[in-house]
This record gives sequence, C-alpha cells and structure tokens, in this order.
Amino acid sequence: MKPLGPIPAGYGSIDGELALGGKAASALVEEAGGTPLFVYSADLMRRRMAVLRQAMPQSLRIHYAIKANSYRPVLELMAGLVDGFDIASGGELEMVLAAGQDPAKVSFAGPGKRDDELRAAIENGVTLNLESENEAHRALRIAEELGKAPALAIRVNPDFELRGSGMKMGGGAKPFGLDAERVSALAREIIAAGATWRGLHIYTGSQALDAGAVAETQANVLELAARLTREIGHPLPHLNMGGGFGIPYFSGDQPLDIAAVGAALGERFDQLPGELAGTEFAIELGRYLVGEAGVYLTRVVDRKVSHGTTFLVTDGGLHHQLAASGNFGTVVRRNYPVAIASKFTGEPVEEVNVVGCLCTPLDRLADQAMVPHADIGDTVAVFCAGAYGASASPSAFLGQGPAREMLV
Amino acid sequence: MKPLGPIPAGYGSIDGELALGGKAASALVEEAGGTPLFVYSADLMRRRMAVLRQAMPQSLRIHYAIKANSYRPVLELMAGLVDGFDIASGGELEMVLAAGQDPAKVSFAGPGKRDDELRAAIENGVTLNLESENEAHRALRIAEELGKAPALAIRVNPDFELRGSGMKMGGGAKPFGLDAERVSALAREIIAAGATWRGLHIYTGSQALDAGAVAETQANVLELAARLTREIGHPLPHLNMGGGFGIPYFSGDQPLDIAAVGAALGERFDQLPGELAGTEFAIELGRYLVGEAGVYLTRVVDRKVSHGTTFLVTDGGLHHQLAASGNFGTVVRRNYPVAIASKFTGEPVEEVNVVGCLCTPLDRLADQAMVPHADIGDTVAVFCAGAYGASASPSAFLGQGPAREMLV
Repeated sequence: MKPLGPIPAGYGSIDGELALGGKAASALVEEAGGTPLFVYSADLMRRRMAVLRQAMPQSLRIHYAIKANSYRPVLELMAGLVDGFDIASGGELEMVLAAGQDPAKVSFAGPGKRDDELRAAIENGVTLNLESENEAHRALRIAEELGKAPALAIRVNPDFELRGSGMKMGGGAKPFGLDAERVSALAREIIAAGATWRGLHIYTGSQALDAGAVAETQANVLELAARLTREIGHPLPHLNMGGGFGIPYFSGDQPLDIAAVGAALGERFDQLPGELAGTEFAIELGRYLVGEAGVYLTRVVDRKVSHGTTFLVTDGGLHHQLAASGNFGTVVRRNYPVAIASKFTGEPVEEVNVVGCLCTPLDRLADQAMVPHADIGDTVAVFCAGAYGASASPSAFLGQGPAREMLV
Repeated sequence: MKPLGPIPAGYGSIDGELALGGKAASALVEEAGGTPLFVYSADLMRRRMAVLRQAMPQSLRIHYAIKANSYRPVLELMAGLVDGFDIASGGELEMVLAAGQDPAKVSFAGPGKRDDELRAAIENGVTLNLESENEAHRALRIAEELGKAPALAIRVNPDFELRGSGMKMGGGAKPFGLDAERVSALAREIIAAGATWRGLHIYTGSQALDAGAVAETQANVLELAARLTREIGHPLPHLNMGGGFGIPYFSGDQPLDIAAVGAALGERFDQLPGELAGTEFAIELGRYLVGEAGVYLTRVVDRKVSHGTTFLVTDGGLHHQLAASGNFGTVVRRNYPVAIASKFTGEPVEEVNVVGCLCTPLDRLADQAMVPHADIGDTVAVFCAGAYGASASPSAFLGQGPAREMLV
C-alpha cells in the first residue's frame, strides 16, 4: 500500500458521494455533460482569499499568477478578489484582457518575451518585469516607436533561494531576471530613458510549505530591495516579493502556516528601512489561491485484475493530470490525494492502481491506493486539481482533447 | 560540459545553415511564417521505410502507431507507405478516417476504451485489440445493437518484457491486455459469439536499441502466440508482434541494428510452428518511423549571462518539447541532439544552456552544451522531434499555443 495525499478542507458529501458547491459529484458531471471534468469551487477560492487577507498585513497586495489556472470564469472571479494579475506570455495577456481585467493592474514576467509580446504589453500599459538588459533595450525601442512611456520593472535574480521550495527560481545562475549586481545600472538607464519606473520583482521559488523558510526569504527580499533601491537612487514604487506559498499534495505534507508568515511579514513592515517607506508591496500566488479549490473527476471505464493487482482504468489521465501522474518536475512519483467520488464516505477495503486511458505505462493516477470497492461507472476524484492541471497537461496526446471545466 | 545526443543521419547544410528537404532552416521558417516550427521530412520517412522493408522479412506487415505523430500530412504520407495504422482513441480514429485510411487496415488498442469509441470502431470495421473481458463484453453488446460482426483481437499481457526498453509494457501486473492464461477462454468465447476473430496483439515495450533484446522478444512473442493458438483451437489470422524499435536520443546511444533484427526474424519465419503457418504478421512502429525525420526550430529571443553561465532563451520550450526538457518519463535529464541551425557548420566555441520561454526552471532544451556562438535571431534545432513532440506536449501551458508544423 502507498499512502494518498491529504484531501483538502472544504469537500463534503451528499448521500455518500463527494460534494462540492452543494452538489454531489454525479450531479456536477451530469450538469457538465460528462467526464473527464475539472470542477472549481468559487466558494473555496473566496474562502482562501479571505483567510489570506486576514493573515497578511493589510497593505500587502495579493496578485494572481494566472498560469496556475486561466479558465475564463476563474479569471473573472479572481479579478474581483485580487489586486492584480501576473502573466507570462502574450497569450495570457489576451486572456486577462478578455476577462475584463484592468491592464494597469497586470504585470508580465517571463524569460523569452518576443517583440510582439513587448509591444502588446506596452500598448496596453501592462508592467513589464524585465528579464535582461537586452529585453530592456527592445522594450525602450518599441515604446519609442509607439510614442508611449513603458511601465518597466526589473526582475532580480537574487543570490538566495527559497529553502525547501519545490522549484527554485533564485540562487546561482538562472535564466530569470538580472543578477542583483547589474540591477541598479539598468534601473538608472531606463529611468533616464523616460520609462515609468515600476520597481522590482524578486521571485525565489515555489511550492514551499515551511513558514520559517518563507518568512526568511521575504526578509531577504526586503533587504535586497532596500539595498538595490539605495544603489538605484530613486524611490521604489512597487516591490513584487514573489510567491512560493505551497499546498499539501503528498502524505505527510503539512499546510503552510499562513498566520506565521503573515505575522512575520507584519513585523518586517513595522520596521521597514527608509528606502522602502513609500513602496507598495505585493505577493504573487497561483497554486496557493486555486490549487485546492479544484477537483478532477474521471469515470471508471474498466476494472481489471492482472497478476493479482486490481486496476481501475479511467476515461481521464495524464493528458489532463501530468503532474499527478508523476511526470512533471518530479523524480519519485508519489500519490496525490485521490478518492472514489461516488463512494466518498465508504470504507477503504481494497488496494488498487488507478490508471488513465492512455496506452502508456506513464499514465498513472494512484499507485497501490486503499479505496472503497469501485466498479465501472464509479467516479474517481483527483484533488489539488485547481492549479497546473488543465493548464499544464498535454491534452491533445493520443487524440484525446481537453477535459470539461466548470466553476461552481 | 554535457554531451549532446547524436544528430540523426540525413540532415545537411546550405551556406552553413542546417538544411532539410533541400532548403535551409531560415527558408523553411520563412515559408512556415515563423518559429517555433516542427519540420518533418517526407524523404527521411520514405528512406526509413525503404531501409526497414529491405531489412525485414518480405511477408512482415509494418504498421504505423499514429500516437507518435498525427499531423495530417504525415498521416497522408504514411498511409501510402505502411500496411496499416494503429490507433489509441476515438480521436485518433477520426484522424485516420479524415486522412483517407482504409478502416479495415486500422487496429485500436488502449486500456480505457469508452462505449462511444467501441461503437465508432465497430461501425467502421476497425479491429479492436481487446484489453479485458469486460471490454470484450461491451464490444459484443454494442456490435449486437449495431447488427454487425465486430473485428476482435485480444491484447496479451505477456509474462516477459522487452529487455532494455525505455518503457516496459509487458511482464508482471499491467493495465494493458489480458494475462496470458486468460486469453484462450476469452478468444473461444468471442469466436463462439460470432465475432470476426482477428488474432492477437502482444506489445512488450518501446524504445529498445539492442537488436539482441528485440530479436529475443520477438522469438518469445511467436512462441507465446503459437501456444495460445493451440489453446484457443482456432487458426490465428493475424499477430501484431508489437514494436519497440528505438532511436538514439542521447550521447552514447547506438542505432538499433535493424539488419540483425530482420535476419533473426527471417530465421524464425523459416521455422514457424505449425499453429502459425497461415498467420499474417505485423509490427507496429511509431517513433522509429518518424522520430528522426523531424526537427524543431526555435529562435533565440535573448542571450544573457547569469553568474558566468550563458543562457540562450528561445521562443520555444517544453510546451512543444516535453520529453526533450526531461519531463516525460525520464528520471535523469540528458541532452537531446541540439544544434544552432543558423550556424550548423560552425565550430563549437562556447558552453551554453538553451532554455525555453516559459517562466519555469523545468523549461530546458540543452544543458551545458558546446555550440557555435549564437545570438538573438539565431535559430536552435532540436532533433528527434518527429515523434512525441507536438503530439505529447502541453502546448497551451502559459497561454503559448501549438507550434507550427510542416512536412517537406
């Protein structure tokens, strides 16, 4: 037997079935027209934001990194909840504009911005988080062609990392941002060139569950921002402190202690160095805001036994759940939280492997999982599906196509 | 420095640039309208098939597993080169029908076939490789509703595996096919029920480079098929012997000795057991037929140095090249064959990291690679891109969208 990850808070049951937004899984599937289906809960997203606002210093702005989940209704919901959107491509810019987001509240980071993406951002007044001197020069040239002052910030590659983060994005040689020692020269150059100086973006890592590590990194970020501001010699209007708040995916993972993070940040804000006295602070979160608010529902198409092992074969799979299958940035595959949605309150009585419908051994949703007895027609739920599920999986693989999505 | 994989045969140069199909990379990009771009060579696919036909016993049928590359012009080309298509979903069935393939030459394998997929296959006269007793019963029921005799084969989960294969699909408990000891009972049952008996499908693994291992597995497959045919008590019309022929991706990989595989198979065919005297034999290949015939071209958008490491940032990335980035079924990331297409004949003079445009450290195309000096506007080529590139990557990630594709 292998353990399953912890089921996030907020999921209930109706008549023994998994329920979300006051509806049973079977009703949600019927409403959507079938499986595989991502269901996102507006209520859980709202609650997550409320808890976060409560925990964080009041002045802290909270941005949503839409790469986690760019489903249009989710963007529309988040637009009313957060203080800004962070995007990573021209395609994402189109999405946030289509969702009615004010472009002045949007910032664009990403190491390989093409000229057409820079142009669209500048035309719309989106803040560019510059990743290199070259990108700065291209942005200034395009802005001049457009006769518009570009809103420019600089992304910093800090010399420290977020300890314990699932994905490190700072510390050492990185394709992201400018090494800290080159930031002030470029900042002075773009300010002199007439750009609207929007400040700094310091992103250190993602998916951290240790409040101490997050707090330590935030302290380092503030210190670095103060030092760079001193070097630049201009007030810092805005500091994007990055994100990194993780969610529990695997057995043994403990939720991030958000109150501790907020308290530590509050203390820092009370003793800000003079350089940052007038600065607006933001964090950018993707996974943390929406990940636990989504569930992936997939129907059991076959139940079979091979050499004593029971397989539940579903109509979903890694084409919608690449990370859950263990094939995205993971070395050792571990089970996400998975359950039999149609028998959610049932006792676990047998060990099964839950697999997808793809004709490849990579397509696994749960290994050696103890679950209630499930048969053809039952529905499997994969939790933590609100982030990097639909958006980060190869949906066209084997001619399958995307899953249904709904926000309830 | 880390080594790059071996560049496949058949790529040349024009004026120092990588050339394919008699055209330089820059001309191909211009013709396609930009990068990122997959270019597939019809000539290389034809040559691969010719060499394969020459090496294999004349009676052996060669099928194309379209999951490797289902780009419509490639399907249309392959339809004229191979003896049948293997599909893995209802979506792929629609693709092969749209490409004009005769459905009688199509077989459908895959562990999670839905009822609507079974129905479409039976309506069109496609052979179903049954993955379980339950699937057989569903197929028989649907065929009865349609008033049509279904063409049914049974997929066998053999007790042996393909030694050294990149992906094992036989040996032990598997979601694919029926354990060998249950095959004869089901075969007799479906024959008795009036189905058109199409024989057996025995797939043991993929991406093997050792001719001895492939030959040994083919011998085992023939032996198992003979034994099962004896047990079933009906002549075996067709045996799909699987595939597994690999291509070199990484430094040190040696091409599969196809002549040795063909010679060994020829010897086996000369001494076939009586049970297989009237059997038609097929192998199914995907990657081997098209993988080396494709190259992915992506433009350098930025060149930057961080802590002494040079990064070439491209407009492509893992959203088109998931496997090359090391995120699909790989434990340790190694470099695919990668080159500077615009300076293909140049001397390697510097070590660079080639990364994609996605805002994630997972997006790597080559680590510590020695290449000619490249700058913004140069083009990077990732080879072995003809299989499981466009078809198996999360193209919508970060709002990017699919790459261009062209067959030359």
